[in-house]
Amino acid sequence: MWSGISASLLATALLFASPRPGLSLPSSLHSASPRSNYDQCVTSNGTSPYGFNPPLYKESHRPQIHFSPSTNFMNDPNGLVYSNGSWHLFYQYNPTDPYAGNQHWGHAISKDLYHWENLPMALAPETATEGIFSGSAIVDRDNTSGLFTEDQPADQRIVTIYTLNNKTSEEQHIAYTLDGGVTFQKYPGAVLSIGSSQFRDPKVFWDKTTESWVMATAHAQDFEVVFYSSKDLKDWTELSRFSQHGILGYQYECPDLFEVPIKGGSKDGQKAWVLGLSINPGAPLGGSMVQYFPGDWDGKTFTPWDGAVRFADFSKDFYAFQTWSGSPDGKTYGIAWASNWQYTNVVPTQPYRSIQSLPREIYLEAYKTNPMFEDYVLSQAPASLETIKGETLYQSGECSSQNKTIELVGDGAFDVQVTFSLPPNVTATYQTIGSLNFKAGGNKDQSITTGVQFGDPTFVYIDRSKTGSFASSNPFMTDKTSGILRYSNSNPITKGVPTPIQGESLVTLRAIIDRSVLEVFGNDGQLTGTSVFFFDDDQIPKTLDISIGDDKIKIKNVEVVALKSTWPECP
Amino acid sequence: MWSGISASLLATALLFASPRPGLSLPSSLHSASPRSNYDQCVTSNGTSPYGFNPPLYKESHRPQIHFSPSTNFMNDPNGLVYSNGSWHLFYQYNPTDPYAGNQHWGHAISKDLYHWENLPMALAPETATEGIFSGSAIVDRDNTSGLFTEDQPADQRIVTIYTLNNKTSEEQHIAYTLDGGVTFQKYPGAVLSIGSSQFRDPKVFWDKTTESWVMATAHAQDFEVVFYSSKDLKDWTELSRFSQHGILGYQYECPDLFEVPIKGGSKDGQKAWVLGLSINPGAPLGGSMVQYFPGDWDGKTFTPWDGAVRFADFSKDFYAFQTWSGSPDGKTYGIAWASNWQYTNVVPTQPYRSIQSLPREIYLEAYKTNPMFEDYVLSQAPASLETIKGETLYQSGECSSQNKTIELVGDGAFDVQVTFSLPPNVTATYQTIGSLNFKAGGNKDQSITTGVQFGDPTFVYIDRSKTGSFASSNPFMTDKTSGILRYSNSNPITKGVPTPIQGESLVTLRAIIDRSVLEVFGNDGQLTGTSVFFFDDDQIPKTLDISIGDDKIKIKNVEVVALKSTWPECP
Repeated sequence: MWSGISASLLATALLFASPRPGLSLPSSLHSASPRSNYDQCVTSNGTSPYGFNPPLYKESHRPQIHFSPSTNFMNDPNGLVYSNGSWHLFYQYNPTDPYAGNQHWGHAISKDLYHWENLPMALAPETATEGIFSGSAIVDRDNTSGLFTEDQPADQRIVTIYTLNNKTSEEQHIAYTLDGGVTFQKYPGAVLSIGSSQFRDPKVFWDKTTESWVMATAHAQDFEVVFYSSKDLKDWTELSRFSQHGILGYQYECPDLFEVPIKGGSKDGQKAWVLGLSINPGAPLGGSMVQYFPGDWDGKTFTPWDGAVRFADFSKDFYAFQTWSGSPDGKTYGIAWASNWQYTNVVPTQPYRSIQSLPREIYLEAYKTNPMFEDYVLSQAPASLETIKGETLYQSGECSSQNKTIELVGDGAFDVQVTFSLPPNVTATYQTIGSLNFKAGGNKDQSITTGVQFGDPTFVYIDRSKTGSFASSNPFMTDKTSGILRYSNSNPITKGVPTPIQGESLVTLRAIIDRSVLEVFGNDGQLTGTSVFFFDDDQIPKTLDISIGDDKIKIKNVEVVALKSTWPECP
Repeated sequence: MWSGISASLLATALLFASPRPGLSLPSSLHSASPRSNYDQCVTSNGTSPYGFNPPLYKESHRPQIHFSPSTNFMNDPNGLVYSNGSWHLFYQYNPTDPYAGNQHWGHAISKDLYHWENLPMALAPETATEGIFSGSAIVDRDNTSGLFTEDQPADQRIVTIYTLNNKTSEEQHIAYTLDGGVTFQKYPGAVLSIGSSQFRDPKVFWDKTTESWVMATAHAQDFEVVFYSSKDLKDWTELSRFSQHGILGYQYECPDLFEVPIKGGSKDGQKAWVLGLSINPGAPLGGSMVQYFPGDWDGKTFTPWDGAVRFADFSKDFYAFQTWSGSPDGKTYGIAWASNWQYTNVVPTQPYRSIQSLPREIYLEAYKTNPMFEDYVLSQAPASLETIKGETLYQSGECSSQNKTIELVGDGAFDVQVTFSLPPNVTATYQTIGSLNFKAGGNKDQSITTGVQFGDPTFVYIDRSKTGSFASSNPFMTDKTSGILRYSNSNPITKGVPTPIQGESLVTLRAIIDRSVLEVFGNDGQLTGTSVFFFDDDQIPKTLDISIGDDKIKIKNVEVVALKSTWPECP
């Protein structure tokens, strides 16, 4: 789907939006026709080849390692599929305005999940009342669909499955590529239609046990995830429903049933199924969120392990999470839209709005929630940053209680990893806090902070209250978010099943900041938080203060690495 | 229980606390022995009869219609029972320090749920390592326990059921009164012990179908609510368990299974069972929260109607919700602790810390969550304010798009009801907001805002970001919270099952502000939010601005009533 605002409310949503006065796009960018990647290169000398000032991709708010559209509005990641050595990222896209509406599928590909090459628009509506809403993609290696000829290499037979939205209905359609994933042909007519206006977001995977395609899709306003089966991607039969679980909010969106490796605990080395499910609005933090349910899949029915609901991210800007189909090496990778429908249409970025989260490698990890309960939680770590690592700005293995200040020299994107240590038999208080404070340049005091408050459990928090006028003025820009995390002690074998009181207690906080987004990973991803923010006056992060609230805590294993912009310079 | 911080962490929690430097209490208040109500009366001339400056109950942060302890620290409401025409409020209380620890049961009674008379300490630990943790109370009308003689009137036979916590165990104990509810005798030994250190918060009710007492209690760190049955309150047998449902957080606390009337929908006029369940920490907003599950109770097992989890309050200061046993007239009343363990021990009030929420009349109401889904939600309205209503400061039935400013003259507590109206066929935008901004006196710009942003659904929000230095500096004092609410149209018959698009769309926002707490009720309680806040410089709410973000919205049916302080003047 395109939003979380139902089809019938599209007109309303458009009026909600706030285009920035004075924004004038080149006429070529107003076109909904397929676009080349001409607009992606970046001038290095401060001039713009396309009339934008600042030049495209050089804007102060523009993240340098997160994907964003050149111009206009993007939301959900769609059609994530790995094919022929490339990661495909399709995405909900309005090519004509910097707010939601006129939904297309934009398209980019990458070899490393960070450097993205824009491709032509993959799917566009046929009429003004249509929308190409969210969905997924798979590689139809065995040509089960009959849509391919023998000319197409098996690993390039991409089929996209998407929702066609119009004023009165939502139905599932497919499209396919005959040129290895650049252009897509629509298969005529719906492959699945049930006469509903709230039926969307098909996510398809290959079920090995039944040798069938399985689609998870949302009966959005009935709060049901419905599973369908097909042998050919065209003829679908209902299998089962997963109804009214977890947090309902206003509606369910973007279900994704995926398999992940398990690390630790009694199931170490096995695989598990996880149902990810987005809701919007009505999240506890307001607006949009992703919840998930670990469980079993028997080829027909998803059975969650328990009646509990868990959260994919503790902060407010992580929605429509989807995993890549066909990730190599048995790993699972996913990405989410790093925004929130409560404010996405009015955030002060231009000429684009919204970004995707960092790509994350995900797995289910044994985790002792409290001294008595062993759980499995979705652990998420950033996909390898090797290809974008720049200069190491600071590195230290020492353990001290000295605060540190580090100048952030680079493109505005930085990877910071700090391990805070509490010696054995030390009792934490409210002041036992270790924090990373990213300060803007300029004359104003603007900053964003993440930190850990030691205890059992420890809190990991993000505070964006002092990030400028948008944070101050928007009534939904919730400032302080937090999640709980248990200690990791210094023995790596017990990571995930910590024994906090004995021995040195360690918490590793990894913060990847990228101009207007902060993603925080506690203990290698056992807990993650994603928050966007918008400094005033064209400022970007310039200084990092690493501080401790009391001298019980020590700072050790500090590493600050500049990350290189992934946008290409113009030839 | 007393907290959400387990017994074994009591020592840690004490160290977490931050007593205010320079606070010196009269030695009589340091005593853990039963106290009279000598300290409750209020001087009218600014002098203190007990050496406090400002006098007790006159402090700038002290709510005037919400219950708070004279001094030191209070948390969960306990033992809520209606007996002999009085409402009893017991509460977790540390009589020796202004932070959690040394847990006793404080005690107050009321005829109207607002004017409270302090009674002697009801239950105190026998040793320094014991804690009298949370629990409940019932009237043992038929003397099933055998603890009463015929001298005691049937409706005065109160038995309290509580957790005795010590370093290595938590077990359930009972106590009873022989003087109509003033002093309590401990029944010797545990009535229920399972050798666990995480077994607490017994809530007992009379089950008519089995003619037994039923106890709901928490296996806190196993995430189980366990039900037990007894004929005499002394001998308990396990019935069933409700395991791993909803949001887990770090641990379950304070389960309460209660019966409520149903209003509207296909079950109109029937009754339903609701399981309320607190978790701390690990709430989505950080720290503490109350979730609930509507369902069926067959005398042995609680079966929720679905796998969903719902929230009792959209904001951050509503915990340990409990209902009164024996409420008259078939109604259900409850109250919660209006604070959050993430910051309760450091909030800038003195010489007391924390308050109870407003008493609320609760029921289950048919509610159309979206155009397709009919739900039943816990609706909560403040218990009748008739006995504390003061001057009407503003009243208007007119409908206008003029902003209004109203001077808040009185004791610092005000009941504001405003209906915002959207005419037929008008489409809301991001600016279609109606808001109530409560401004402090003094030279600084300090205020707290609640508002509605029209849409389908409408958002109701609270913004406490501009309430002063505590909000600015505490990393867990989350500022902006919101929930969703659907329109109520002008036909009262369809309230709760609104048809928003046709006809005039109405949202009624009721805000009860009381010096340092704001409770918001959307559409008569279909959605509620509770937020504490702390103005600097001894300021209290002085001015109310009622504003609209665009002129599509109209302001109508405004009523602003001053509420009279419920603390008695000294004789």
